[in-house]
Amino acid sequence: MEVALLGTLACEQRDRLAPKTGGAFRLIPLPDDAKREEVAGVLARVPAIVTMQYDRSMPAAPHLRLLQVGGTGYDGIDLGFLAPGAVVCNAFGHEIPIAEYVILAMLQWCTRFIEAERSLRIDRHWRLGGRTAGPYQDELAGKTVGILGLGRIGRALATRARAMETTVIACTRSPQDLPAAVSWVTGPDGLDEFLSRSDFVVVTCALTPETHGLLDRARLARMKPTAVVINVSRGTIIDEEALYTALRDRTIGGAVIDAWYQYPTRGDLTVRPSRFPFHELGNIYMTPHSSAWTVGMIERRWQDIADNLGRFARGEPLSNVVHRG
Amino acid sequence: MEVALLGTLACEQRDRLAPKTGGAFRLIPLPDDAKREEVAGVLARVPAIVTMQYDRSMPAAPHLRLLQVGGTGYDGIDLGFLAPGAVVCNAFGHEIPIAEYVILAMLQWCTRFIEAERSLRIDRHWRLGGRTAGPYQDELAGKTVGILGLGRIGRALATRARAMETTVIACTRSPQDLPAAVSWVTGPDGLDEFLSRSDFVVVTCALTPETHGLLDRARLARMKPTAVVINVSRGTIIDEEALYTALRDRTIGGAVIDAWYQYPTRGDLTVRPSRFPFHELGNIYMTPHSSAWTVGMIERRWQDIADNLGRFARGEPLSNVVHRG
Repeated sequence: MEVALLGTLACEQRDRLAPKTGGAFRLIPLPDDAKREEVAGVLARVPAIVTMQYDRSMPAAPHLRLLQVGGTGYDGIDLGFLAPGAVVCNAFGHEIPIAEYVILAMLQWCTRFIEAERSLRIDRHWRLGGRTAGPYQDELAGKTVGILGLGRIGRALATRARAMETTVIACTRSPQDLPAAVSWVTGPDGLDEFLSRSDFVVVTCALTPETHGLLDRARLARMKPTAVVINVSRGTIIDEEALYTALRDRTIGGAVIDAWYQYPTRGDLTVRPSRFPFHELGNIYMTPHSSAWTVGMIERRWQDIADNLGRFARGEPLSNVVHRG
Repeated sequence: MEVALLGTLACEQRDRLAPKTGGAFRLIPLPDDAKREEVAGVLARVPAIVTMQYDRSMPAAPHLRLLQVGGTGYDGIDLGFLAPGAVVCNAFGHEIPIAEYVILAMLQWCTRFIEAERSLRIDRHWRLGGRTAGPYQDELAGKTVGILGLGRIGRALATRARAMETTVIACTRSPQDLPAAVSWVTGPDGLDEFLSRSDFVVVTCALTPETHGLLDRARLARMKPTAVVINVSRGTIIDEEALYTALRDRTIGGAVIDAWYQYPTRGDLTVRPSRFPFHELGNIYMTPHSSAWTVGMIERRWQDIADNLGRFARGEPLSNVVHRG
């Protein structure tokens, strides 16, 4: 069976994927710089594509039956462009590193490890330490961690945050099978109260038409003036200008942002992540969409993808179906 | 009752301590720059001293019945210099921030948050992110966290580390009441095996004659070549030259060090923390004895000290007795 690896990000996993599938598939790489005729020729015949991005700017795939997303968010897939009957599946494996990122981000916010490290190593000064009666830092214990969206990431985070002696609350559409770590939960109608209770607002929900711009100016204004918003999902769930303004005017405490508004292109790896100068602000930590990017994640994820391709080839029920055309 | 606050660090807590004692004591501040005659006059009569440091270089305190240490480590107290019958008590409240520091340190070691943050903000580059297929980072989950000493800090750390999906092991003189988070424990005779099993070796034990230089060259050689040693206790539990050499020669993976060999003096806050140039190495994070230094710690600690002074005044049994003269 032929499977197209569409886009450079998918192509780069070919050597990881091939041994996991036991050589049962012909994996056809179509990197970003492949010629359009070549891409069109392959997509015209394959029953399965693995990709992060597929939309109307690309050639049609009339025989497509499985579009396997190479990640979790499938906002890069134009569902209306797919052949009738095509199934879309996504992939996970990132809940551990993203939960770890959020724990680290909250601890860093409270305790300023980076600044203390820099002061002793570079500035050669003890002013941030206890022996010189330096400024007291904060603790994560005792804080309220608000998780927006209680999927795999939210659940992996909830357990860890509770063990750090925080109060864990959540806002989710589907409050069934609530983890024991979560002490209070609300649906979307309780979002404002959720925001007003949280010391950390952690955005882990998927980007959908309902969540696009969900944290707008009015919503950010519901947060405590000391509270910190952490985004490990998709940038546009938080309104870009409203976030910048809230940080600049210090109407919220701060932000730790891994999911952005502008991304690098093939030709330019120095694209600023926003049209606003977040990098000039002192109350934000900003990372390059790196929170999930671990060896463990990529191994788990492509094992899951290989397993799903195997199910597809054998005609068995697929895992992680997010759309049926 | 008169209580001497001996040393600047104790004096600086006077306004925090006074209201907690309900004004029941006359607190006499004796900062580092107090005249010797003044110090001698006060110590000649007080029944109680709160201090971090008391030794033969200081005037005698013949009527001393309680020496309340203003912290946990009492290696600054010369027990042989105390008046007969004097009791030494220490104080805690730091187990939460130190456990938080260790979790942050391990996460930072695995995931390189600092470097990713710097690359996007300062270097304006996405090379460390997922969208550019940057280098994969590591995860804390799955690692073995070895806790040397299973006191309050070790126990607070064990719970948190287990929730991060690590395997937690310990080496302790007193393996009773083992926390559920600890899956394997050994006494001092199993130290070598403990070291060889651990991905992180976390030094949380007290500095005593038995633990001074405990992790020497031979012991460090038992660690995995990828393992990281974290010291949040006292510097000299790890042999200074052996640690520097192991890091420089990369016979161990790295270190995160908060407890040092040289400390700032009143006149010089830029003292290097060691006679060796640790700051030139790329496999160490170094902080200025800041891991415990939080508002929560200082509030809990001085509440405990106030409570102990109250017990002393009422003739009740004292808490946290570490020595009876």
